[in-house]
Amino acid sequence: MKRSFIREILEHTSSNTISFAGGLPDVSLFPCEALQSAAHTALQNAESLQYGTSTGYAPLKEQIAGHYCNRGFPTTPENILITSGSQQGLDIICRYHDGASIVIEKPSYLGALNIFKLNNMKDYSVPLEEDGIALEGFRQSIAKSKLAYLIPDFQNPSGRCYSDAHRKEIADIIEASQTLLIEDAPYSELYFHAPHKSISHMLPKQSYHLGSFSKVLSPALRVGWIRADVELLTPLIAYKEAMDLHTSGITQRMVCEYLKDDTSFEKHLQTLRVAYQEKMHYFCQQLDLHLPSFEYTQPKGGMFIYGRFKGVDTRALVQQCLAKGVVFVPGAEFGGANDEIRFNFTYSSFEEIAEGLKRIKSVLSSN
Amino acid sequence: MKRSFIREILEHTSSNTISFAGGLPDVSLFPCEALQSAAHTALQNAESLQYGTSTGYAPLKEQIAGHYCNRGFPTTPENILITSGSQQGLDIICRYHDGASIVIEKPSYLGALNIFKLNNMKDYSVPLEEDGIALEGFRQSIAKSKLAYLIPDFQNPSGRCYSDAHRKEIADIIEASQTLLIEDAPYSELYFHAPHKSISHMLPKQSYHLGSFSKVLSPALRVGWIRADVELLTPLIAYKEAMDLHTSGITQRMVCEYLKDDTSFEKHLQTLRVAYQEKMHYFCQQLDLHLPSFEYTQPKGGMFIYGRFKGVDTRALVQQCLAKGVVFVPGAEFGGANDEIRFNFTYSSFEEIAEGLKRIKSVLSSN
Repeated sequence: MKRSFIREILEHTSSNTISFAGGLPDVSLFPCEALQSAAHTALQNAESLQYGTSTGYAPLKEQIAGHYCNRGFPTTPENILITSGSQQGLDIICRYHDGASIVIEKPSYLGALNIFKLNNMKDYSVPLEEDGIALEGFRQSIAKSKLAYLIPDFQNPSGRCYSDAHRKEIADIIEASQTLLIEDAPYSELYFHAPHKSISHMLPKQSYHLGSFSKVLSPALRVGWIRADVELLTPLIAYKEAMDLHTSGITQRMVCEYLKDDTSFEKHLQTLRVAYQEKMHYFCQQLDLHLPSFEYTQPKGGMFIYGRFKGVDTRALVQQCLAKGVVFVPGAEFGGANDEIRFNFTYSSFEEIAEGLKRIKSVLSSN
Repeated sequence: MKRSFIREILEHTSSNTISFAGGLPDVSLFPCEALQSAAHTALQNAESLQYGTSTGYAPLKEQIAGHYCNRGFPTTPENILITSGSQQGLDIICRYHDGASIVIEKPSYLGALNIFKLNNMKDYSVPLEEDGIALEGFRQSIAKSKLAYLIPDFQNPSGRCYSDAHRKEIADIIEASQTLLIEDAPYSELYFHAPHKSISHMLPKQSYHLGSFSKVLSPALRVGWIRADVELLTPLIAYKEAMDLHTSGITQRMVCEYLKDDTSFEKHLQTLRVAYQEKMHYFCQQLDLHLPSFEYTQPKGGMFIYGRFKGVDTRALVQQCLAKGVVFVPGAEFGGANDEIRFNFTYSSFEEIAEGLKRIKSVLSSN
């Protein structure tokens, strides 16, 4: 199996390289003190250091279920399986459905593509359009697929967000089939204007909804979850416990303590939304200034700007850029076109954004 | 796939049930304050909350490599892959060797048996004798096996420890073959008298050595590792990152901070050795007092006492015992005989040990 482009890049870039590659949060926005205090409280109790149950720490499952209920999506703790990040959640589901056929968006999340390979799955990729995955192609592919993997909110890598009408159409198509939806939703809370209703909400018996604290709290926690109907969730538990027994009880309890103060999490999310929107605007402004030939649409949330330098081989370009101390991910890594690029706009500082785009400009103009 | 007997039991026993079932450390011996302070220090740095590299936190890999070097086993950080517990380490190796044949001890670790099933492996089980796995059977099975899975130190479930002469013989047999050794070593530091040289140490190019902080520090950390030759280790990295990206940076840094004070870890290990030996002696004394028909050998380390009630169906017995508020694991769960039992002696208090064994006595005498 091939390693992930992004993860290898992460290991080999020097500290002087400006990275628009990984889907990394802004370090300066992590709620350090609150998590430090959450850890302190959690570790008062020696039981926090003991083995835990396979499905996750019960009070945390309750909090997550409550969050769905607040959004009008009836959910109990029995619908939640805590995973070591939502990456593991996806792997557990796919491992259970080993060898199944799956409809995916084109382009799609690199880490998911690796999981599909690892689990011998046959994927049918359907182009992602402005409003969501192309309906006709989706309808045709669903007929021959056991699973569909979609990222409706601020998709990785495209940054696109499914319209409400499109979500309804997708839900109707799936409901009329035997297919199960895997909805990956790590960016759902990072909207700049308004949240969207998940497709799973319209398909409670026919969906796995993947959630994560990586983008909204801290990726180092490695705490994510699967929300599914009990009948779908139950067979996954044996896989979870065979794979790593259970997710860290320490980081689960840290999240749980942190979430106890409802208002502070909501305030933190609001801070992220405002700060990321501001960074996105700045990134776009600098793109228009230094790289006016880059064609893209402004995202309405999430972490990525996706677009293209028409006719430019971006795999060759990224190698040249690396030599100049700036890196991004070529669209081809996600199954996109050869002239496409994904830029992450959340990780770098304003200064780095301007400087990084200038470096790309200098590479392009020397070609 | 079937769920693990132990993990299901863990979820369904009431707080009044005395458990000799799980391989759980003594909660009262966790170094709570030291880990709390380690967390506090680690979380001072916002980078602790960011994504990390797939192979693990570099300073922790250095500490682990240093530990091997101190034991005379030359190891660099490039030989270490940090995993989310050693359970995941074993799964990564087996997933890479999907469908391979593997020699195992009979009885063997339940969690490993589940991993072998999950990865479509064909296992050849060879009886475990007083000094280690039966040599003649091992020699024959190795000829048709790509892998061998052994737990030489205070084996789970049997509690047995390979003699030094036996280790040398096993290493010689493997060296003369194409087989790769997977040596699972979670209990190695929990010796009552003296440590043993690992078999991997004699086979540095032909072995995966699995380590873990679960039994010696805290299982809730979910931090373990694989030590292997770079050539063996490199292809596993793509699997690790597809499976959960990387192990929690928070718990890795907690361990790293904790280990910075070398003497305190060594002191803690010494405390565990003394306390567990004392508990083991008490357990044996109470067994001899209340259940004199139980045949067993005193272990020289680890967490388990294994033995048998000659002719008693221990799967039926455990159901009756559960009703009386005491639980253990029947040997059959590990591939052992129907009249065998594994008792964990580390988790329960002295009072619970006496009371639990009395409850088993009352069940047996009412039969």
